[in-house]
Amino acid sequence: MNINSFAAQKPKSELTPFIYAPDSLKAHEVIVKITHCGICHSDIHLIDNDWMVSKYPLVPGHEIVGLVTDTGSDVKHLKAGDRVGIGWQSGSCHNCDYCNTGQENLCKQGQPTCNGHYGGFAEYVVTDSKFAFPIPEELESVNAAPLLCAGITVYSPMRIYGIEPHHKVGVVGIGGLGHIALQFAKAFGCEVTAFSSSPNKKEEALSFGAKYFVNSTDTKAMQSIFGTLDYIITTATAPLDWASYIKVLRPNGRLNFVGGTVGNLNIPVSLILGHQKSVSGSAIGGRPMMTDMLRFAARHNVIAKTEVMPLKEVNTALAKVRDNKARYRMVLEV
Amino acid sequence: MNINSFAAQKPKSELTPFIYAPDSLKAHEVIVKITHCGICHSDIHLIDNDWMVSKYPLVPGHEIVGLVTDTGSDVKHLKAGDRVGIGWQSGSCHNCDYCNTGQENLCKQGQPTCNGHYGGFAEYVVTDSKFAFPIPEELESVNAAPLLCAGITVYSPMRIYGIEPHHKVGVVGIGGLGHIALQFAKAFGCEVTAFSSSPNKKEEALSFGAKYFVNSTDTKAMQSIFGTLDYIITTATAPLDWASYIKVLRPNGRLNFVGGTVGNLNIPVSLILGHQKSVSGSAIGGRPMMTDMLRFAARHNVIAKTEVMPLKEVNTALAKVRDNKARYRMVLEV
Repeated sequence: MNINSFAAQKPKSELTPFIYAPDSLKAHEVIVKITHCGICHSDIHLIDNDWMVSKYPLVPGHEIVGLVTDTGSDVKHLKAGDRVGIGWQSGSCHNCDYCNTGQENLCKQGQPTCNGHYGGFAEYVVTDSKFAFPIPEELESVNAAPLLCAGITVYSPMRIYGIEPHHKVGVVGIGGLGHIALQFAKAFGCEVTAFSSSPNKKEEALSFGAKYFVNSTDTKAMQSIFGTLDYIITTATAPLDWASYIKVLRPNGRLNFVGGTVGNLNIPVSLILGHQKSVSGSAIGGRPMMTDMLRFAARHNVIAKTEVMPLKEVNTALAKVRDNKARYRMVLEV
Repeated sequence: MNINSFAAQKPKSELTPFIYAPDSLKAHEVIVKITHCGICHSDIHLIDNDWMVSKYPLVPGHEIVGLVTDTGSDVKHLKAGDRVGIGWQSGSCHNCDYCNTGQENLCKQGQPTCNGHYGGFAEYVVTDSKFAFPIPEELESVNAAPLLCAGITVYSPMRIYGIEPHHKVGVVGIGGLGHIALQFAKAFGCEVTAFSSSPNKKEEALSFGAKYFVNSTDTKAMQSIFGTLDYIITTATAPLDWASYIKVLRPNGRLNFVGGTVGNLNIPVSLILGHQKSVSGSAIGGRPMMTDMLRFAARHNVIAKTEVMPLKEVNTALAKVRDNKARYRMVLEV
């Protein structure tokens, strides 16, 4: 078979049509006919080779929903017609300390879906069947697609770092990741505060689950809540005044970074010492976490707010993401 | 009664004899006749007013062991003759979220033993009886005294941050705190690596429980263990290359700061992002943690290696600590 896709042929280029013939299907793999694929900022980092690891031709796309069309001979848990989602990761060693404990996202041999492997801006994608996750029927494909990367990225740290219902949680940056984080934190039972430098996002932030909205450029507003939150997840892509967010935390609080890198963390150690605070990072989540996340999203109707464009308009859609104009996630329809 | 002590009358001064009359004993207080008091670096920070919070006259000393001589009318759990220890903290509100959960070290109204209150370089000390902890009889007073601050400081984060027996633990800085941290980590069942810029501490570090000794100034030695440890506790008082210690951690690893502040943490966020790493701080521990720590130290014979001097030679002893010549803890005998 031949697969129609869109690829970047070199760093920072527009995507152009690209046809490739996949290797013959391996015993553990499935082929998925794609119906929807979200656009994540990391697709743009890969297109632009910002991380110096991109391999071209590069077919981006790692927030994929589609239908299984064929399964390898060893695949027992999926069959043709099943609706599945595929995220950032499409393979791992299945044998290391991390894979053995359902933390495949930490596997050294983790295979990204759209680097060194052709991704989801395409008609079809081939993947290790263990990284194709059934989508609960309550979720619509278009709004579920971004959960596969943006969703797991914000859900997983809330679980691994022990967010509890009585906690007060802050979400910094109300975009593709942040607007889903607000929904999850609310669904966890927490009291949620949204931080954004765009006051015009206030109303929507409240509709996503925030009880409070703080304009993060307002120094007095920040100071007025010093020492009040248990956990802050930051999805920001720009370097911010991290010290002031650490001051917003209560004793035992944690500031967790997800998503793109934001340069350097430069804070006085004394800020975390006396009040037993933590700063951490996390990236996506393991397979069991993905399954839990999808079920939890279905139970609580956590979905991405999306703008849909046809796959053939991928360059227009990418431009909108580059300009931070997506509200809140662009999804390509195939 | 009058209490003979040694006090600093102003910042950076030598200590001089100081006699004070304590307030009449309150219902919840006890008087303790001091037999031993360790010297901690933070005594020197207080004498020198490094933290800009010192109140003079300042009677230092917060690693106290002695015998109860009198008890207030409400004190039921201690009686005259009991041997007790007193650490950094000698009071708290007993009514906040933190006190109510045995995390008195995080109480906003925490009362330090030797600032705004006369400390342990003295014949007697008066304290809230809830901060006088019975010393298990297996422990000798002279070697137990430093556990009250140095001991709890390194033990508590191992507990709150979930060190498990299968972990590989690093201890940075083999001094007053570090040599006790090595013993606790070994007693927890962990494989322990000592990091020091003083190669001449290798043999002793191994005797305290380290399996490996890494000269932290040896870049190649550091690189050879990147990605191997689960937890690093740093007791260092100088700013080090923290990024390289974070690289020494495995995925899910944690770098925890204790003791004095060491300036700024300046690391690329990307270092903690992909491998789900944490950086944190902690300071002493709550009352239940103190009790657990003393019992655990008694069970495993975790003790400070001490050099003893009489109280009247306090200035000589302080000079030795200032010069980093104590091996590993100076203790004053009263």
